[in-house]
Amino acid sequence: MGIARLEELCEQLRKKIIGYVMQNGGHLSSNLGMVELTVALHRVFNFPKDKVIFDVGHQCYAHKLLSGREEGFTRLRKRGGLSGFPKREESEYDCYNTGHAGTSISAALGIAKARDLAGDDYSVIAVIGDGSFNNGLVYEAFNSLKLLKTNILVIINDNGMSISPTVGSMHEYLDFLSEDSEEQDHKARRAVIFDRFGFDYDGVYDGNNLAEMIDRLTAIKEKLKHGSVILHVLTKKGKGYSFCEENPEATHGIGAKPAVSYTEYSEVLGKKLCALAERDKRIVAVTAAMTGSLGLSEFFEKFPQRAIDVGICEEHASILCAALASRGLKPYYAVYSTFLQRSFDEIIIDICSQKLPVTLCIDRAGISGADGETHQGVFDLSFLSFVPGLTIAVPKDAEEFAAMIEWSAGFNGPLAIRYPRASMHSFGEHGKIEDCSWEKLSEGDGNAVILACGERAIARAFAAVERLTSAGVRPSVVNVRFVKPLDEGLLSALGEQNIITIEDNMAAGGFGALIAERFSGGDRRVKIFAYRDSFIEHGGVDELMDDYGLSVDEIVGYIRRIYEIG
Amino acid sequence: MGIARLEELCEQLRKKIIGYVMQNGGHLSSNLGMVELTVALHRVFNFPKDKVIFDVGHQCYAHKLLSGREEGFTRLRKRGGLSGFPKREESEYDCYNTGHAGTSISAALGIAKARDLAGDDYSVIAVIGDGSFNNGLVYEAFNSLKLLKTNILVIINDNGMSISPTVGSMHEYLDFLSEDSEEQDHKARRAVIFDRFGFDYDGVYDGNNLAEMIDRLTAIKEKLKHGSVILHVLTKKGKGYSFCEENPEATHGIGAKPAVSYTEYSEVLGKKLCALAERDKRIVAVTAAMTGSLGLSEFFEKFPQRAIDVGICEEHASILCAALASRGLKPYYAVYSTFLQRSFDEIIIDICSQKLPVTLCIDRAGISGADGETHQGVFDLSFLSFVPGLTIAVPKDAEEFAAMIEWSAGFNGPLAIRYPRASMHSFGEHGKIEDCSWEKLSEGDGNAVILACGERAIARAFAAVERLTSAGVRPSVVNVRFVKPLDEGLLSALGEQNIITIEDNMAAGGFGALIAERFSGGDRRVKIFAYRDSFIEHGGVDELMDDYGLSVDEIVGYIRRIYEIG
Repeated sequence: MGIARLEELCEQLRKKIIGYVMQNGGHLSSNLGMVELTVALHRVFNFPKDKVIFDVGHQCYAHKLLSGREEGFTRLRKRGGLSGFPKREESEYDCYNTGHAGTSISAALGIAKARDLAGDDYSVIAVIGDGSFNNGLVYEAFNSLKLLKTNILVIINDNGMSISPTVGSMHEYLDFLSEDSEEQDHKARRAVIFDRFGFDYDGVYDGNNLAEMIDRLTAIKEKLKHGSVILHVLTKKGKGYSFCEENPEATHGIGAKPAVSYTEYSEVLGKKLCALAERDKRIVAVTAAMTGSLGLSEFFEKFPQRAIDVGICEEHASILCAALASRGLKPYYAVYSTFLQRSFDEIIIDICSQKLPVTLCIDRAGISGADGETHQGVFDLSFLSFVPGLTIAVPKDAEEFAAMIEWSAGFNGPLAIRYPRASMHSFGEHGKIEDCSWEKLSEGDGNAVILACGERAIARAFAAVERLTSAGVRPSVVNVRFVKPLDEGLLSALGEQNIITIEDNMAAGGFGALIAERFSGGDRRVKIFAYRDSFIEHGGVDELMDDYGLSVDEIVGYIRRIYEIG
Repeated sequence: MGIARLEELCEQLRKKIIGYVMQNGGHLSSNLGMVELTVALHRVFNFPKDKVIFDVGHQCYAHKLLSGREEGFTRLRKRGGLSGFPKREESEYDCYNTGHAGTSISAALGIAKARDLAGDDYSVIAVIGDGSFNNGLVYEAFNSLKLLKTNILVIINDNGMSISPTVGSMHEYLDFLSEDSEEQDHKARRAVIFDRFGFDYDGVYDGNNLAEMIDRLTAIKEKLKHGSVILHVLTKKGKGYSFCEENPEATHGIGAKPAVSYTEYSEVLGKKLCALAERDKRIVAVTAAMTGSLGLSEFFEKFPQRAIDVGICEEHASILCAALASRGLKPYYAVYSTFLQRSFDEIIIDICSQKLPVTLCIDRAGISGADGETHQGVFDLSFLSFVPGLTIAVPKDAEEFAAMIEWSAGFNGPLAIRYPRASMHSFGEHGKIEDCSWEKLSEGDGNAVILACGERAIARAFAAVERLTSAGVRPSVVNVRFVKPLDEGLLSALGEQNIITIEDNMAAGGFGALIAERFSGGDRRVKIFAYRDSFIEHGGVDELMDDYGLSVDEIVGYIRRIYEIG
């Protein structure tokens, strides 16, 4: 294919991406910006023999379209359909699964090392956005390039955005490299940092210019035989679709048309934190590159001195919070459940072992849906419940969440509050939040009690209870507002009742397991409804909840059996 | 005090450190190298008003001696005695607790930011070794220095060691900076990396020269009013004690005189991996800066192509293993339990969600003793047991461990093997390791069964059984060789027996919790012996095990109760 034909292909890919994303939801702007770079990679390199790893992976749509997977796009990110991220299970063109930031260079080094040990000769390429490039993993991988004695190509796809605009000194440095430095000598002189780590630096500062991309990659392919290269590419996020170009953050990800309207928990967080910060000078908000999605844009505007976005650096963010708290401030670290996994060690050592009053606002907890295995927030209760000294709260609805945030300002210890994206229900007035007590939502017939943990679990508990009414069966429903500590008063008062737990989390190590452990010394039945031991693929939230362990049918069936109504 | 008097003080401190460490065990070489730097810091800065954070923190002995804590050194690292790490609870001279690598710069930034918000004017100093300086957290913190608009001093204590000798390009860069560059202009020209991140660079290349250290710090104290500074200090690890200077890795930590002889699990790992690697070309060993302590020195000598030490980069190490495994290799990642916490997200996403055959060799699992809260390996079963697709093995003794390593070479999936440092027991022949089956070690009277998880738990189970013999009570003892999957065949065959579990791990989310969950649907009693919900301080392994939940007395007492013998 000549260049004109390839440019036409780029336009076709762009149209397809827009079409499929508009139909199914998905990552839009990032994929539009990547079209020329992806076409150039496929033109110059020989996939799947050569290997390419997309960091985070949400920008792989053009790559998927070019590797024979267009058919799957009609059900992109739907249950059983094509994943929105690279998947080895899906195609030999995907050599390494990604999802979280900063892993691509480490993975490329491992694959290149394996290649060398096997005496093979393919090229290994990591494509990483400037946002991910802030992550500490990049430095760890850079640090070991020379000692691994292998060669890779790192392509920095620099569009200035990491969902939020990219912040920090490394991005300033990238800007510095690309300013007025088309001339090769100049580039090399400025790129000493990369040189120190063992990379030759090269830049294509119009990365949506296909011909230039192809030329440069062709030259680099030769260079890779003798050393490692960083290719710094400037691309336009949302390229080719003016609405996206002008609104790159809002169009980073497009949701499938929502069936019903709902309140975003993140909005509640933002509003409430602003109100608290007005009167409480100790309050600081910290995020790792997701200000808008976490509901904190207004806070960042109103309180710039007390608003910190550190870029995609979840570990650093946690320590910063611990240190701020050690000097009397009251930091709120807002983060998606799945990304909080990166802060695990710091939650234990920095926050909890020092008993510091950091509040973790854990968004997108539970099944998050269309992003699939790498983005489900179904592990947080399991990895937090055994951490000594951590209090874990789970609001029943948006109103109770607001009350919890209010309450948290006066709470003096490590605290985690976990919630899903959407609040779809309102369970009425909530009891006063104090002493980590639970709330009885409905009084039953005294034979069974459902301990339900968070909005989604409570909604399913009530759905089950409703279906049981006609059979004359009425278990009571409790709003488990705190997974830790357990409400011992309420638990002791349960008498001989059957216990059923429901939670939007893995079964092992979750809330139900705490209850099973609590009653393990006696003769009590505890039935746990939670997700079984497997990774949860992409799909709709409700269908995944049904299929992985929280179906109302199963809950109803179990309760019928314990009431012996068959 | 004049300089001569201060130099005398240094010698006194050195003698005290040697004396106390020889008596109690502790970190030796690193503390000897730090004496002049610490005395200079105390001379120039005004602690506790000014704040100093020691990265990892094992090098804080001179600081503790200078801040009125000498009395505590007679029981250094003993139960109830002085901690070997900085502790806010111990003294106002310790402003932030550390234990794991790379956190000090983030913490310094947080404290400095809090200072600015409060309008205070103290200095904030992070002291970080060249080993920790490899960790990705450093880069994350550097990246946000300018955006936080605050000033800190980072002192790199460069002794060329990170337990193992420091590896990687960042250390090469530090070498480059200190070579022949006493001249200021030269230094500045070379230090562009630090300049880019917003630091002025300065170096003292004989960091054991007290007068020079004091002069330079005095000048820097002024500079800190206007900006941030990196002071690169070369020190001699083990300085002033020739045996330590010549053996810095072996004298990094000195154990208290061991009461009994034992086999190190790490030695078994090293020998067995060497034997396997001779015949299996797929085997690769990966460590994060602890080659010797993990038993891998011989492997590194014999198989340099397949031995990778990436420095203190636990996240990167995990991904590297996943990537090597994705290309058909069989990587073994050896790491201390407490440091594996840094790889948590990568274990989920990179290793397990991709079902890659990486073997995690988890050393120092369970209570590790004298290092205290930040180093106990008591969380691993809790943070691994809910990860889908991970098999978790726990050997009963060194011989079974060797057999497990042998077996692991043919195992095709993510695998974790956890073990303490010392093997003190031998429980005789072990049954064949296959299908993740458990092993019945002693047949009982059919009323109760102890499911014991790992050597220490089994030893306590047998100690309890022995004390019960005279009462005619004989529970059987099972060697739980795999925490995951559970041996369903054996569990189903238990009939109505009382179940007692013992494990060297937290109760929440551990092995016992899995058993409680497994039986939660029925009327079965499961009694869990594991550590209760609190951080475990420093002390002796056995006394801590007794005090935090695994005392033989309590186990015996419980069993007497269920047998109704009072």
